[in-house]
Amino acid sequence: MKVSKLFFKTLRQDPSGEASLNAKLLIRAGFVDKLGAGIYSYLPLGLKVIQKIQNIVREEMNKIDGQEVLMPGLSPKENWEKTGRWEVPEMYKILGEDYGLNWSHEEIITPLAKKFLNSEKDFPKCIYQIQTKYRNEPRAKSGLLRGREFIMKDLYSFHLNQEDLDNYYEKVKEAYLKVYERCGLKDYTYFGLATGGAFTKGYSHEFQTITDAGEDIIYICEKCKLALNKEVKQDKCPDCGGDIFEEKKSIEVGNIFKLGSKYSEAFDFKINDKNIIMGCYGLGISRLLGSIVEVFNDEKGIIFPKEIAPYDIYLIDIKNQKESEQVYEALKYKGFDVLFDDRDKAPGEKFSDADLIGIPIRIVVSEKTLKEDSVEVKKRGEDKVELVKLKDITKFLENC
Amino acid sequence: MKVSKLFFKTLRQDPSGEASLNAKLLIRAGFVDKLGAGIYSYLPLGLKVIQKIQNIVREEMNKIDGQEVLMPGLSPKENWEKTGRWEVPEMYKILGEDYGLNWSHEEIITPLAKKFLNSEKDFPKCIYQIQTKYRNEPRAKSGLLRGREFIMKDLYSFHLNQEDLDNYYEKVKEAYLKVYERCGLKDYTYFGLATGGAFTKGYSHEFQTITDAGEDIIYICEKCKLALNKEVKQDKCPDCGGDIFEEKKSIEVGNIFKLGSKYSEAFDFKINDKNIIMGCYGLGISRLLGSIVEVFNDEKGIIFPKEIAPYDIYLIDIKNQKESEQVYEALKYKGFDVLFDDRDKAPGEKFSDADLIGIPIRIVVSEKTLKEDSVEVKKRGEDKVELVKLKDITKFLENC
Repeated sequence: MKVSKLFFKTLRQDPSGEASLNAKLLIRAGFVDKLGAGIYSYLPLGLKVIQKIQNIVREEMNKIDGQEVLMPGLSPKENWEKTGRWEVPEMYKILGEDYGLNWSHEEIITPLAKKFLNSEKDFPKCIYQIQTKYRNEPRAKSGLLRGREFIMKDLYSFHLNQEDLDNYYEKVKEAYLKVYERCGLKDYTYFGLATGGAFTKGYSHEFQTITDAGEDIIYICEKCKLALNKEVKQDKCPDCGGDIFEEKKSIEVGNIFKLGSKYSEAFDFKINDKNIIMGCYGLGISRLLGSIVEVFNDEKGIIFPKEIAPYDIYLIDIKNQKESEQVYEALKYKGFDVLFDDRDKAPGEKFSDADLIGIPIRIVVSEKTLKEDSVEVKKRGEDKVELVKLKDITKFLENC
Repeated sequence: MKVSKLFFKTLRQDPSGEASLNAKLLIRAGFVDKLGAGIYSYLPLGLKVIQKIQNIVREEMNKIDGQEVLMPGLSPKENWEKTGRWEVPEMYKILGEDYGLNWSHEEIITPLAKKFLNSEKDFPKCIYQIQTKYRNEPRAKSGLLRGREFIMKDLYSFHLNQEDLDNYYEKVKEAYLKVYERCGLKDYTYFGLATGGAFTKGYSHEFQTITDAGEDIIYICEKCKLALNKEVKQDKCPDCGGDIFEEKKSIEVGNIFKLGSKYSEAFDFKINDKNIIMGCYGLGISRLLGSIVEVFNDEKGIIFPKEIAPYDIYLIDIKNQKESEQVYEALKYKGFDVLFDDRDKAPGEKFSDADLIGIPIRIVVSEKTLKEDSVEVKKRGEDKVELVKLKDITKFLENC
């Protein structure tokens, strides 16, 4: 894609009315646009990253036998009255109608699963969707971390007994850790214990990514690395008994719940007179984009991890070298996804935009580099600049 | 995918409370589930078809320089007050908030484009999304043809002058025809003239697919095949002057509008003191699924066109032949997407389900076929059954 054609515009100044770093950077870099508090449009660059995260999540969910569906955003009041969650502050209700906007989907998936799972051999089943959720959120001040409208993956599992849920729950935990790893967050993300919130009376588990922008406080056990949410902090680690903890600010990037029979009871979902045992597993796709930006940035802009960067290469032409177009075509031909800054702008402006957008590799074609039959290659987040011969460039990049 | 694992269930009887053929068949075949009037969940089989249609649409929109974004479902009242479309029956409003649910996106994309397109060289731009829309629909009785919640592709184009819009409009028309062709609807779909409805005072154009389930009446010019919607029917064809027309019932599967400056005026979107000229182009993804089912069916079920079928092959095992699993693995290895009916059910039930679901090719492995070192191959919608040697099967299928 040529930058001269791309639907976007970078800003030199922080946008007004945004307190959070992720929203400031994503708006300045032309990834998202704010329509209202907690409501964002995804522009081409932002949507590309969202789609890459979605594909990672989809792959990892399919590996643990998740089957993808798509449930509605609107649902009838009666589904929510069965569980007592109609009159909750999260629920946006439609004026003059008995419909609400779904902020979670237990009330939809449970009666749906009951229709299709009628005998022991139909179990277990694991159903997920990637879908837009709505939540009446008074504190929508954290950019993509806490939205009134947000993109979420929610998986629901159905089991005949607790043991089967327990086994599957471990598989989901591993799949989640794999998602964070592929998104570059492995070294920043901890598995830990939290309260069940609106979903279950027992404990739940969550995945917390460490960053100063975090609204949560966690205590990481020095010995076994389990993270205890402030809400459930104890003197000793419940897993290993350790009593030394490190306090960190963090963002919850995923949560998993053993729902037990709470929802199957509400919808009378039984096999052989025994309630079905359920688990639910949430992972915010748009929140993950916000979290990644909070973790990976410097004073110049975003620094995207490789697997979810909007493009592989940011190619800069300095002063209309005809060879730039050839390099662009050659890189595309070799399978690289290239954003080609062909604009008639000052070099400094192009370098600033490259840093702001945060694509992993920057390549510059200028009169100076061409004198050496070369291009200049630099990784985002590193200072080293290398001259690479034109004939060696694709080989060089394959080893980057 | 093995049918024994698939999250679905077929029904022998029509579901209650559904008048439309598309909803009856899609529910009976386990593609969708009805949550409320005009509100459906897409189950794994249905979502696969939706995703295939989305990918076709995406490819054709990208070919005409469309850039994909994702705009919100929620939007603030003030955007709609600028165009006088807040107080319309289509709008679902949120109780106690100044938000509505978007039933179209001119009010969002126009101020967004104004932020990014600031000089002549930024034009033209063509921006689209594939997104869930909400529309307060009193007559939600046509299954996926007319929903309160539905999936739509909407493209918006921005031009400096009318001529540029006119040229691009023709490209969109060709891209739409290509989408219908790839979805198998070429022989049933006509381009024609309609009123501008809520979008423009002038005429608009639409694509109409002929089926008895259609809520529209069109008059097809015998000479040039232009379709005139009943609303705009004239004595002579405005294109060729012909005066012989054939009356048909049809479904509108797409519409394209020359908006002119209606929305750019409302949002004061100008370059060099001249209003930007806009076009908008809608194509209902979920409606297209419904339309395809209305067109392609028989008394036994759905007959999916090849490119959008949920799977390539429906493989039936009769009475637990161990070779079935081998055929399944071999076909998958060759790149076919196979739904393998491995259930412990009577052969008749499996044949009925194969016909109901409508996958293009059915393969049967039974004791009888194996005696001949063969499998039985039948195309959905044809009566001919062929015995094909196991060793020749992939070659045979490649020519199907």
